[in-house]
Amino acid sequence: MKKTAKAHSNIALVKYWGKGDEKLRLPVNSSAAIALDNLTTTTTVEFQENLTADQVDLVGEGFEVGEVEKVSKHLDRVRLLAGITTKAKVVSQNSFPKAAGMASSASGFAALSAAAAAAAGLQLSEKELSILARQGSGSASRSVPGGVSVWHAGTSNETSYAEQIEYPKDWDIRVLLVMAEDTSAKKVGSTEGMALATTSPYFQIAVREAEANIKKLQASMGAGDWRAFGKVVEDECFRLHTLCMTETPNILYWRGVTVEVFQKLLSLRERGVMAFFTVDAGPHVHVVCQGKDVTRVKAELEQLGGIKTIIECGIGEGARLVEQHLF
Amino acid sequence: MKKTAKAHSNIALVKYWGKGDEKLRLPVNSSAAIALDNLTTTTTVEFQENLTADQVDLVGEGFEVGEVEKVSKHLDRVRLLAGITTKAKVVSQNSFPKAAGMASSASGFAALSAAAAAAAGLQLSEKELSILARQGSGSASRSVPGGVSVWHAGTSNETSYAEQIEYPKDWDIRVLLVMAEDTSAKKVGSTEGMALATTSPYFQIAVREAEANIKKLQASMGAGDWRAFGKVVEDECFRLHTLCMTETPNILYWRGVTVEVFQKLLSLRERGVMAFFTVDAGPHVHVVCQGKDVTRVKAELEQLGGIKTIIECGIGEGARLVEQHLF
Repeated sequence: MKKTAKAHSNIALVKYWGKGDEKLRLPVNSSAAIALDNLTTTTTVEFQENLTADQVDLVGEGFEVGEVEKVSKHLDRVRLLAGITTKAKVVSQNSFPKAAGMASSASGFAALSAAAAAAAGLQLSEKELSILARQGSGSASRSVPGGVSVWHAGTSNETSYAEQIEYPKDWDIRVLLVMAEDTSAKKVGSTEGMALATTSPYFQIAVREAEANIKKLQASMGAGDWRAFGKVVEDECFRLHTLCMTETPNILYWRGVTVEVFQKLLSLRERGVMAFFTVDAGPHVHVVCQGKDVTRVKAELEQLGGIKTIIECGIGEGARLVEQHLF
Repeated sequence: MKKTAKAHSNIALVKYWGKGDEKLRLPVNSSAAIALDNLTTTTTVEFQENLTADQVDLVGEGFEVGEVEKVSKHLDRVRLLAGITTKAKVVSQNSFPKAAGMASSASGFAALSAAAAAAAGLQLSEKELSILARQGSGSASRSVPGGVSVWHAGTSNETSYAEQIEYPKDWDIRVLLVMAEDTSAKKVGSTEGMALATTSPYFQIAVREAEANIKKLQASMGAGDWRAFGKVVEDECFRLHTLCMTETPNILYWRGVTVEVFQKLLSLRERGVMAFFTVDAGPHVHVVCQGKDVTRVKAELEQLGGIKTIIECGIGEGARLVEQHLF
């Protein structure tokens, strides 16, 4: 059967930095994220008896050797579950450039998991699909449920998965991706950076903070307290980056423009506009704000230099099968 | 007697962020600093029987009310030691603008202490002078010995003072003060920021790290290991600022240019030029490098936008009396 799935990238509000169990891709702490509707991966999978090896392609860009291997390894997981050995043809397409630093592995492995599982005849629950996606790329577990989700760190393969959580719909949450122009700084990959997390003297406390922040985030959403929500979001941004800065060797993902966006949002806040920043392992800023403030926030950010583009996103759905195939 | 003293500002390599004993100005941990020869305060003091109140002036700028009170309170300490009640005339002059964010209180209270003590007829040892200066402004204790110094946190008034430590003279240490153009961000004073230090979940560990870094700094200097020295300097920069970022409310002293200077130095390092950054409670960067690299480092930094000026300093002497009076 030929099956096609769509999934969205996500931005972590409560982050993880450090692996718990490397082999199972268990994170060192639970995390929470928003799926981003405008950052989409679409993937078509068909298991074809005539193939002697998996055929994997990314429309318009192609995959590197290491990436093809990862996809193939992930297909092995699906084949194991389905009890088949047939090789597959996989075509994938992103709505955004892979190298832009927008976590394409999250949407990629979520879409791949959904399409491959269905193509192999598996009927997986959302939870089972999240567990499967996690094994391909940790953050992909959160792109399976989509919406606002919590990925429970868990202690085993079966207990480490993501599920949607409730949030105030009247917040009309938007995420502005503020992409830095200059990405020339020496890049330490998140895998490499996470592996060094324990060299920070603050590591153990930082892990405890993350678990506490999951609770604070949910409490703020339960209470409809946007300011409290934003405080957790920024605390978490600082938690991840201060952990990086205090590793050996020290890691600094920010650029000038990253900090200028922070300062701009802090200055906007003094003028009553409540938009909050978060940053992953790179120089780009994700600005979390409400629909009513998008125009104002965007206009203020556009005054800054060093920004390549600003991409506006709403909250995306979870991974799902669609009718239109890529081949 | 009319006496005049000179003292230099200093930049902390191992920093302190948090008060131990507020009243005695005991810091929460020991610190280490370099005195900066081009940032000088000159102060003339004369106790005059005819005065009914202290007369205090800063040439070219004037003092604010709060500052005059602090000077007068410091003169009280000297009067108490000397057993006199005579009011004093004080004229002070900085080689740099007070508001430029270059810690004029360090050089200011070191020069004031030296001049006032001598004018009151006291013969204080360097240690006694450092203890006296500390009570006016914590970091002034380090400007008394000058050179490269360690301020022992101590546990009482008598045990909290600074003294010079040995460093490799062949390093020919220079400090480039890279002054940010835009200082418009909301300024949280260091006193206010320090008072909140304990709200960071990392506070206790950060204090222990500082004491460990004092030992590492001295070990690196003992071994003549410039790279190891620089690693401590940058670890300390990150230690202070990550502490600030993880306070509630979060404090971010950096601007875009601050981080761009960091990135520039990191990129220079890949090209073999070993210059290191440190930052106090503001956006300006102190670049610590060797004489042989000054021209190269300065030229690279001058390519960056957002810099107002770069001031080159060597290592300054301690507080000392001079012949030429200001009145």
